Amino acid sequence: MFNNKITKLLHIQYPIIQAPMAGGVTTSNLVAEVSNSGGLGMIGAGYMTPNQMREQIREIKQSTSNFFGINLFVPSEFDVTQDKIKSANQILQPIREQLGLHHIDNLEIPKYDNVLETFNEQIKIVIEEKVPVCSFTFGIPSSKVINELKQHNIMLMGTATTVKEAIENENAGMDIVTVQGSEAGGHRGNFINEDHESLIGLMSLIPQVVDNVSIPVVSAGGIMDGRGLMASICLGAKGVQMGTAFLTCTESGASEIHKEEILHAHEDQMVLTRSFSGKRARGIKNKYISEMEKHEATLPEFPVQNTLTKGIRSASSSQKNREFMSLWSGQSPRLAEKQTVNSLIKNIITEAKNIITAL
Amino acid sequence: MFNNKITKLLHIQYPIIQAPMAGGVTTSNLVAEVSNSGGLGMIGAGYMTPNQMREQIREIKQSTSNFFGINLFVPSEFDVTQDKIKSANQILQPIREQLGLHHIDNLEIPKYDNVLETFNEQIKIVIEEKVPVCSFTFGIPSSKVINELKQHNIMLMGTATTVKEAIENENAGMDIVTVQGSEAGGHRGNFINEDHESLIGLMSLIPQVVDNVSIPVVSAGGIMDGRGLMASICLGAKGVQMGTAFLTCTESGASEIHKEEILHAHEDQMVLTRSFSGKRARGIKNKYISEMEKHEATLPEFPVQNTLTKGIRSASSSQKNREFMSLWSGQSPRLAEKQTVNSLIKNIITEAKNIITAL
Repeated sequence: MFNNKITKLLHIQYPIIQAPMAGGVTTSNLVAEVSNSGGLGMIGAGYMTPNQMREQIREIKQSTSNFFGINLFVPSEFDVTQDKIKSANQILQPIREQLGLHHIDNLEIPKYDNVLETFNEQIKIVIEEKVPVCSFTFGIPSSKVINELKQHNIMLMGTATTVKEAIENENAGMDIVTVQGSEAGGHRGNFINEDHESLIGLMSLIPQVVDNVSIPVVSAGGIMDGRGLMASICLGAKGVQMGTAFLTCTESGASEIHKEEILHAHEDQMVLTRSFSGKRARGIKNKYISEMEKHEATLPEFPVQNTLTKGIRSASSSQKNREFMSLWSGQSPRLAEKQTVNSLIKNIITEAKNIITAL
Repeated sequence: MFNNKITKLLHIQYPIIQAPMAGGVTTSNLVAEVSNSGGLGMIGAGYMTPNQMREQIREIKQSTSNFFGINLFVPSEFDVTQDKIKSANQILQPIREQLGLHHIDNLEIPKYDNVLETFNEQIKIVIEEKVPVCSFTFGIPSSKVINELKQHNIMLMGTATTVKEAIENENAGMDIVTVQGSEAGGHRGNFINEDHESLIGLMSLIPQVVDNVSIPVVSAGGIMDGRGLMASICLGAKGVQMGTAFLTCTESGASEIHKEEILHAHEDQMVLTRSFSGKRARGIKNKYISEMEKHEATLPEFPVQNTLTKGIRSASSSQKNREFMSLWSGQSPRLAEKQTVNSLIKNIITEAKNIITAL
């Protein structure tokens, strides 16, 4: 019953992909457990150094012989002026002080050339370590990179938030496209027209994309259980990618406070903010997001703002201060549970089968 | 297979409700055709006088003996100051002039007491004319009104955009709650915390509401075909309410230009604006919405702003000028088709059956 293009291409039993959440959530244990339970585990490698990547890939290979994947952020050029950094630092200083961060070390502001260089090294690692699946967020890599990965039989997945972005992914040679609905937690994956809203709910996005591409579609955003899986399949998707549902699992590397916040949150507490990284992302509203609201438009771009807030994010996290942490979550926190990856996947499949029987 | 609580309560063959779009879209022909084709036709009576309502109800009864419904706007108190009206009129004046509206008649600015009085008269008509189903948007009527309608065996449907609003609807005695996802076209139905976003996609909203109320749930927003119907059912809804899909039908009273604009639109052209009525609503972005963007926060509340823009909306419509019309639409315009109501409903059911067979 779940024998379709996606399960075939990705060599998985169930069409369930664990979203590649960056920033320490996707521990080797999480990724391997997903792949061992019949889904596709994914490393969120967006912020990793090539060495960290290699280490984790090898660790996962020790724990599973099944397919797993990795996600990279596609770099795009960004402006960075000293004035903008200075003004952002002035805005952030009172927040740093509330967290006891009085002495700011010299921050190494990223430059596009270095970011691009790192990306190319990351690609090299993916190829050398023969990672079976590679997905991309924030854009589409060059045809040179795509061709290289394809020559090594690596399955390629792109991210799209509109029909146009999905078509571009298909045209670029992606094997699969993940459509990210407005419900999704964490970073928005839009890459055409940055200023544009492109917050399309999955009920609208999936069928309109499916009608306009021929590659298989995976849906992402607010999907937490067998109901979301079956709804996605009815709308024409071949599989689902789930983030928040895996984030609260026991194997995930998210902090306990992050997990607890999601487990007690309501659907209308999630807001979009670019104040943590410079790119819009969805998370639980807190003091930091509220205070930064009026500065949203003037903050530096990704990844510059991300660098500037690194200290705030890590200090608030180690101080267990929810008010200044990036508490990413999709719009379905009431459906989140604390459970093992294995029971999450088993529950999804059982529920999906029950839904089919009841139809 | 569609024998469930909704079809039973509403005495319909298929769990398909035509959304009660106000402003002339829901002609008697449209409403009757929906009810004659196995769904529930609904009159969008929000802007109607009691007499207009009575007339249309009687007309529909001539064309169908099946159940149909009516929708009313629940009034809430609003502030209106002469200063705010003056400043809004100054903003609107250049737009009026572009449309050749040089002489503005004295506009009759609505007062809350009058709006409430009209609402009570509307309720009286619903009872006198024995309309089988009555739904509400923008709030929940008083328990006095609810009890009166219930005593006359009128089925009551409320609107909710969050779990909390759905629970309030259930507690107030509604028989059914319609959950409006962020995908929906036209006015947002939120009524708790006006400033709050509450833009929850249906993939998240349906299951979270279903888990928290015991009355049956109808889903609304971006649903256009059998895929949307089956997805909603998988998520736990018992039926769907569809607006845009019926708006482009041949029987709908929407202007030809409005229909054509939807038939040629893309999913990412739909934006939220409060510049037409004072309440946020989703429609195709045009010059009017763009020009008013910077004034969004300062415009008068609903229904005052709606009165101020009446001339602009009707002049642009009769001049077939898409740039100043309110082109309401949900986020799935690529799925819209020009067809009869009967074939729309038949296609939905055929597609839904095919989906079930394929599972």
